[in-house]
Amino acid sequence: MILDGQKVASSIYENLKKELKWLASKPKLAVILIGDNPASESYVKIKEETAKAIGIDFELFKFSQDIDEADIISRIEILNNDQEVSGILVQLPLPTHFDEYRITQSISPKKDVDGLTALNLGKMFMGKNSLYPATAMAIIEILDYYEINPTGRLVTIVGKSNLVGKPTANILLNLDATVIICHEKTEDLAFLCKRADILISAAGQPNLITADMIKDGSVIIDVGVNKVGNRLVGDVDFKEAKKRAAAVTPVPGGVGPVTVVSLMKNVIQAYKEA
Amino acid sequence: MILDGQKVASSIYENLKKELKWLASKPKLAVILIGDNPASESYVKIKEETAKAIGIDFELFKFSQDIDEADIISRIEILNNDQEVSGILVQLPLPTHFDEYRITQSISPKKDVDGLTALNLGKMFMGKNSLYPATAMAIIEILDYYEINPTGRLVTIVGKSNLVGKPTANILLNLDATVIICHEKTEDLAFLCKRADILISAAGQPNLITADMIKDGSVIIDVGVNKVGNRLVGDVDFKEAKKRAAAVTPVPGGVGPVTVVSLMKNVIQAYKEA
Repeated sequence: MILDGQKVASSIYENLKKELKWLASKPKLAVILIGDNPASESYVKIKEETAKAIGIDFELFKFSQDIDEADIISRIEILNNDQEVSGILVQLPLPTHFDEYRITQSISPKKDVDGLTALNLGKMFMGKNSLYPATAMAIIEILDYYEINPTGRLVTIVGKSNLVGKPTANILLNLDATVIICHEKTEDLAFLCKRADILISAAGQPNLITADMIKDGSVIIDVGVNKVGNRLVGDVDFKEAKKRAAAVTPVPGGVGPVTVVSLMKNVIQAYKEA
Repeated sequence: MILDGQKVASSIYENLKKELKWLASKPKLAVILIGDNPASESYVKIKEETAKAIGIDFELFKFSQDIDEADIISRIEILNNDQEVSGILVQLPLPTHFDEYRITQSISPKKDVDGLTALNLGKMFMGKNSLYPATAMAIIEILDYYEINPTGRLVTIVGKSNLVGKPTANILLNLDATVIICHEKTEDLAFLCKRADILISAAGQPNLITADMIKDGSVIIDVGVNKVGNRLVGDVDFKEAKKRAAAVTPVPGGVGPVTVVSLMKNVIQAYKEA
């Protein structure tokens, strides 16, 4: 079975649209984009379109990569104090001469819709309500939609980023999954993947997950987005995964669209809890 | 080989004593103890003795279990604002009618020497400097002292508490270990333990880790402290572990003493970063 991210996203999208009707005013998402990375520009474009389609106001703050870090931070502080703004997001990655940590931590945790501030990550760590990283939320949304219960299941996660691998591991642990976290230094990756009831790859490496690493009847969530020639592919050998696994997300059309609507869910949550 | 916690603790203890000589004033640890749980009382006693022996001031605030939660929180707020106090610790567990989360989160992150506030846990999650939970620190100190490098090793952790299992998993991931986290809902616990190069049990269940769950030549860290009759035992069948593993921590005399000095390390860090 294909786990259709578009379908999951549509279902969340419809719910959010309904919810927005009941709000006294429009939530607003402010996005900061620095430099001219074409991939970042296209991600921001998708966020803008989705926000507007749902009924969320959107404002883009675009800066050249020559801008001073202090100027970015003062812009964030203005947005932190702007009552019209519900959510603030700095599009990552930043050009390498910026301190990503310092910049993201200057966002007010109440408006941190990417879930990257220490306070929000700490609450997530403890299983408390907060704004969670959208990609991790998207993975859980997909499992939920298809009624795949991770409790007691063996989940192998490939990748240990603060944005995807580690938060996903924590959320799944809080849901009582048994979790294995692998990464570049892992020996025996194939073995640890092959055991998994649910395999989540967020490594960003095309064809990393090959046929021999997939357990028959398992669930595969492919978070990778890799450009190969003109095509976007995930981390997983999709053809083989379709044969062996019980269910697999495609790339594109899997985790991606659900991540964008999960971000919008955070914007609305931030609005309501302001 | 026995991993001698007392020896590791002594080495840290001596370093802290030396460090204290250079400080302009004495750091102070304030401990809040609620109710009359004898185990909690004896843990607090050990902390008091260790603090004083190192040269850290110690003050105990003891309350009956009838105290209002609001009164505890106002006491914490007074301590948060008291410049003489470097570190604040609420001895856990609290009597069940208290909201542990609300109480611990009222501690200023700068004085949170148990590393339980969301802000500190979030920083730890990202591998940034902060006050880390002392038991997780102790495990790393023991590995360090015996020059056991977790990078690339397969580490299985049994237990997923916010105080031990999850922080230890995160710190080890940040050190590039491959990490498996198991718990009560884990099927196939024996298999996942048996694969581990380093096995850390923090389940609090005597004799949980039996001979068949131990890889030959592995390292076993036993965080369990269980009362069986009048004896304290860990989670691991120590006799069998000694035969099979390359190295194992005893209970008592393993992780425990290192945890207490790690807490003192946090008090001094909090003092210096105040």
